[in-house]
Amino acid sequence: MNAQVETGRLYGIGVGPGDPELLTLKAVRLIKDSPVVAYFCKRGGRGRARNNCAAHIRDDHRELALEYPVTTELPHTSGEYRDSIEAFFDEAAEAVAGELSAGRSVAMLNEGDAFFYGSFMHVFLRLKDRYPITIVPGVNSIMACSALLPKPLVMRDDMLKVVPGTLDDQALRDSMAGGQAMAIMKVGSNLPRIRRIANELGVADRAWYVEKASLPEQRVMPLSELGEVQAPYFSMVLIPGRGERL
Amino acid sequence: MNAQVETGRLYGIGVGPGDPELLTLKAVRLIKDSPVVAYFCKRGGRGRARNNCAAHIRDDHRELALEYPVTTELPHTSGEYRDSIEAFFDEAAEAVAGELSAGRSVAMLNEGDAFFYGSFMHVFLRLKDRYPITIVPGVNSIMACSALLPKPLVMRDDMLKVVPGTLDDQALRDSMAGGQAMAIMKVGSNLPRIRRIANELGVADRAWYVEKASLPEQRVMPLSELGEVQAPYFSMVLIPGRGERL
Repeated sequence: MNAQVETGRLYGIGVGPGDPELLTLKAVRLIKDSPVVAYFCKRGGRGRARNNCAAHIRDDHRELALEYPVTTELPHTSGEYRDSIEAFFDEAAEAVAGELSAGRSVAMLNEGDAFFYGSFMHVFLRLKDRYPITIVPGVNSIMACSALLPKPLVMRDDMLKVVPGTLDDQALRDSMAGGQAMAIMKVGSNLPRIRRIANELGVADRAWYVEKASLPEQRVMPLSELGEVQAPYFSMVLIPGRGERL
Repeated sequence: MNAQVETGRLYGIGVGPGDPELLTLKAVRLIKDSPVVAYFCKRGGRGRARNNCAAHIRDDHRELALEYPVTTELPHTSGEYRDSIEAFFDEAAEAVAGELSAGRSVAMLNEGDAFFYGSFMHVFLRLKDRYPITIVPGVNSIMACSALLPKPLVMRDDMLKVVPGTLDDQALRDSMAGGQAMAIMKVGSNLPRIRRIANELGVADRAWYVEKASLPEQRVMPLSELGEVQAPYFSMVLIPGRGERL
C-alpha cells in the first residue's frame, strides 16, 4: 500500500505594484522555497507579476505560465466571453491542483495584493476547500499611487472610498458623491466619464491622476492638467482626504 | 567661504503591519543606507514600527526616538491635549529637520503605509516644503487583515469603503449603509457601537473581526462569534464584497 502523498500548500503572494523592490521579504522567501511558481499572463508574454519577481525565479523552479486565451474577437460582457474565460480559469486551477496533489507547494504570483481585486481569486475560489492556502499580503496599487501625491491620501478621521472606474455612470456618480477621500481604479477608457463626473460633483480640483506608479515611467499630475489622453487600464484617479478631525 | 551642506533626504517608509517579514526590499535597503532612523514611540518603549525593523538597525545608526508626551490625564478631545500634542509634533519635526540640515538622510519608520493614516503625516506636513521627501509604500493593515479572511476582500466591480471606527454614531451608520465591502479601522472601544450598527443594518452576518494581523497572536473570527471583549485599538471589522459583476 502506498503512503498517501501529503499535498503542497498554495501561497497567494502579493508581489506589489511593479517595482521589484516593493516585494516583501516574505514573498521572496516563499518564492525561493516553493518548487513551483505560477502566474497569469498574456499568450506569448510572461506577465507583470512574474516580471516583478524575475530576480528570484531560478532555472530549477517549475513554472506554470497560465496564458489567457486570446478573446479579442468577443465583447467582454458577452456570455460567450464569460464562458470561455471561466473555462480557462477552471483549467488554470486544475493545473495548480495537479502540482499541489503531487506534493509540491505553489507560489502563485499576484500583482499588488492577492485579496484586493487580485486575479488570484479565480484560483482561490476553485481550490479553497481542497488544499491548504496561505495569503501573503502585498503592497497594493493604491499605496503605490498615493506615495506620489503631495499629501497623505487619508489621515485622522478621513473615510476612503475605493471605486472601480468600470461602474456605470449612475453608480459612479453615487460612489463619487460625498466629498470623501477616493481612489478610482481601473481608469483606462473610463477616464472621460470619471473626469466629467468629477467636474459635475465639484471635486475635480482636488483630484490627481497617476499612472504606472512605482515604475520608472510613472506619471503624476493634477487631473485638471491632464490632456485628452488614452489612460492605461492600470491608472488611477485619487482624491486625498481633508484630514477630517472629530 | 564654506560650501553649503547638501541636505539629506527624508524617507517616509511604510514598514508593514507587524510581521518583520512584511517589510519590502526597498524599506530594508533604505534603512540600511540611511545614517539616521527615526520613529514615534511611547515614553520608555521603542514602538511597533521600530520593532518591525529591529533586524536592520545597526549600532552605528543614529536613532531618533520621538517619544510621545505622557498625556493620559487629558481627554484627547480637549484643546489642551491638542496643543500639547501639536507642540510635540513641532519638536519632533524640528529634530528630524536638524538631521536633514546637517546633510544626513533620515529613514522615518511608519507602521503600515506612511500615507494611509500614518503618523508620518505629522512630520511630512511640517517639512514638505523644506526638504526632499520620498514616500516608500508599505503593506497596510487592511491587506494584512484581509489575508486572514476565507474569501477576497474585494473582487471584480466591488466598491470598498474604509471607515474609521472613531466616527460618531450617525456618521458611522451613514458610512456603513449600502451593503458594500467595508473595512472598519480603529475598532478598539468602538466595537460595541460598530456591532450594534452592523446588526441594525443587517450586515453583521457578513462581518469578520480581526486583531493583530500578521503577528503570532493574530485572531480572526466571524463578528457574530466574538464575545464581549476589549478589542485592541489595532483591530478591524471587515465585510468582504460580494464579487459584484457588471
